[in-house]
Amino acid sequence: MDFNRYSSIYLKNLVDEVLPFWLKNSPDKEYGGFFTCLDTEGRVFDTDKFIWLQARQVWTFSMLYNQMEKNPLWLETAIHGAEFLKKHGRDSAGNWYFSLSREGAPLVQPYNIFSDCFATMAFAQLYKASGVEEYREISVNTFFNILKRQDNPKGKFSKAFPGTRELQNFSLPMILSNLVLEIEHVLDPAIVEATIDKGIHTVMEVFYQPDSGLILENVYADGSFSDSFEGRLLNPGHVLEAMWFVMDLATRRNDQKLIEKAVNIAINALEYGWDKEFGGILYFLDIKGNPPQQLEWDQKLWWVHAEAIVCMLKGYEKTGDQRCLNWFKKLHEYTWKNFVDEDNGEWFGYLNRRGEVLLPLKGGKWKGCFHVPRALFLAQGLLKTLAEKEDKVLSEM
Amino acid sequence: MDFNRYSSIYLKNLVDEVLPFWLKNSPDKEYGGFFTCLDTEGRVFDTDKFIWLQARQVWTFSMLYNQMEKNPLWLETAIHGAEFLKKHGRDSAGNWYFSLSREGAPLVQPYNIFSDCFATMAFAQLYKASGVEEYREISVNTFFNILKRQDNPKGKFSKAFPGTRELQNFSLPMILSNLVLEIEHVLDPAIVEATIDKGIHTVMEVFYQPDSGLILENVYADGSFSDSFEGRLLNPGHVLEAMWFVMDLATRRNDQKLIEKAVNIAINALEYGWDKEFGGILYFLDIKGNPPQQLEWDQKLWWVHAEAIVCMLKGYEKTGDQRCLNWFKKLHEYTWKNFVDEDNGEWFGYLNRRGEVLLPLKGGKWKGCFHVPRALFLAQGLLKTLAEKEDKVLSEM
Repeated sequence: MDFNRYSSIYLKNLVDEVLPFWLKNSPDKEYGGFFTCLDTEGRVFDTDKFIWLQARQVWTFSMLYNQMEKNPLWLETAIHGAEFLKKHGRDSAGNWYFSLSREGAPLVQPYNIFSDCFATMAFAQLYKASGVEEYREISVNTFFNILKRQDNPKGKFSKAFPGTRELQNFSLPMILSNLVLEIEHVLDPAIVEATIDKGIHTVMEVFYQPDSGLILENVYADGSFSDSFEGRLLNPGHVLEAMWFVMDLATRRNDQKLIEKAVNIAINALEYGWDKEFGGILYFLDIKGNPPQQLEWDQKLWWVHAEAIVCMLKGYEKTGDQRCLNWFKKLHEYTWKNFVDEDNGEWFGYLNRRGEVLLPLKGGKWKGCFHVPRALFLAQGLLKTLAEKEDKVLSEM
Repeated sequence: MDFNRYSSIYLKNLVDEVLPFWLKNSPDKEYGGFFTCLDTEGRVFDTDKFIWLQARQVWTFSMLYNQMEKNPLWLETAIHGAEFLKKHGRDSAGNWYFSLSREGAPLVQPYNIFSDCFATMAFAQLYKASGVEEYREISVNTFFNILKRQDNPKGKFSKAFPGTRELQNFSLPMILSNLVLEIEHVLDPAIVEATIDKGIHTVMEVFYQPDSGLILENVYADGSFSDSFEGRLLNPGHVLEAMWFVMDLATRRNDQKLIEKAVNIAINALEYGWDKEFGGILYFLDIKGNPPQQLEWDQKLWWVHAEAIVCMLKGYEKTGDQRCLNWFKKLHEYTWKNFVDEDNGEWFGYLNRRGEVLLPLKGGKWKGCFHVPRALFLAQGLLKTLAEKEDKVLSEM
């Protein structure tokens, strides 16, 4: 396979079509922070500021500055977002709000712990890029606040009646498995190792279901199955994203068996979640084949496909499993045909089952400058590594 | 138009295809209450009990017993649901939970005041059917609890940060406009009149937007427009349902001008919400034409079409406005082609934009035995009245 050619497609999309879209349309020069509700051409259609997306955009530009190129505009953009977050993002106890008005007034309470997770990531990367001590402190303090809240992350906003059906949700252990490596440089090594141990155990033993070879979104504390809407829920995109997080943890631990287990689970998720009729990965499924609660179950989402591409390339790079390469080609074709908008930049976020654009937006309440540039950056790098490996093999023949 | 023929279509669907589906598949003979998660053929695919749907089913069978036929099975079915609700449905302060396990243990906290609204309706209709004083008390006590909670219906579960963007939502004033007539027989007449005054004012003056001739889902306290996702949100189905509630209030007040205003708003909602490409009424729209937050925005929902049919027939019966009759025919055709399942009974609930079945269910977390039988009962009655009027005109010629 011509890995170099693929690598340059991902790199070009990142540098020429995705980053310019955000740099041009997203910064709010008047009040600080970023606009994320951007239509097909990049016009701002709503000015609310969602902490998830503010923080993720700070992270993206910091990470690219750290890992790709010391571009001063990228660092400046990250700081532009971070200063807005620092000034307006938290309540007096250090919890991150869910959203703010354009001017920075709190709109939605800190009910969602993922705001805190993305703020932790953002400030740790920006600390690495800038060396500013205050950013390190914000990251570490937020991380310890997450650990404190992790057993009851929704606090008073939790609608579950205690004791009747105590399920734990996959999202937080999944994110922590990524977050721990993201912020390793600001943490005590003992905490890093303990968090990795817990993450691998929770994701790969508690949530993993040996019967189906899949990971479910909600399980009992001991990992057992709940035959309820929540318990039957499968989110293939989550599984695929989590599996490349686990591959990173396993690589760090030098655990090839764990990498292979992650690859197998990811392939299972793709086989289960792939839409045999129209192509693309379905958003939600019920593991028993019942109608899911989520009306959007059959839609095709940008992040699911972006993360699947990263997962398959990482899987192939780490194991050489041919199934990963076959899936990568299929995902690449679907994604470039349906999500990528080479005319206007960035990717569409939401397609209907047939792959037609459902919402003509490039950013909104949940889609910002994150999954697409991260996946493009990782994919071009993995493809370059694969090209180099191939060259080496050929030259040794 | 052959109103008699149409009337018998609605009556036959109600009596032969819809009620038997629920009577056969829904009662839980072991633990009481109703199963509402029923697939195409009526098989139970989930056993959770949602208070909205438990109460609405009690209401439906009580209402049909009171207004259509003194069928002892209907009363028995209503009591079967009411006894389960009475025993398990409330917390110690009398707030209604959102959902219970099959056995009746609370699953989801009383965060949703509409559980209380539907319980009020249910027990008031059942009191009328049964004369059981305890049911009257439950209805009245719940109603006063709603009034007490109405300015902050979500209580501690509200995620809005106070003061930044204080919007009021249309759903509660809309439901109260219907509820007040539903429970008139258990209320002090002064409270009835005051609630009607407030309902008409809130719906037709505060929420109504003279610029567009439409009603929005969320407005500031003075009715002014908020240029935000919530503020721009239009739910055509809500408008159509609310407009027939208002026609009932206006009829009681003998206010023909108000009826005409309601008809005009309803027609506006249909013209705005009708999908010019694939037919059917869209679920959500952004009044400024931006992408809405709701991923399910382009779906076609059963209740929207059921309520639109009732609204157009009521509008025609009360005003003779030919536009209502034209819309009724268009809605009837779409509905019978896409929602009605004459083979297995009941209607499908959720169609995609093209009118294809999106979820192969007849009941779920939000769809129960309510909108369809209520609409069928009201429609057959309105069509019969229209047939009689026509006969009278013809015989007088």
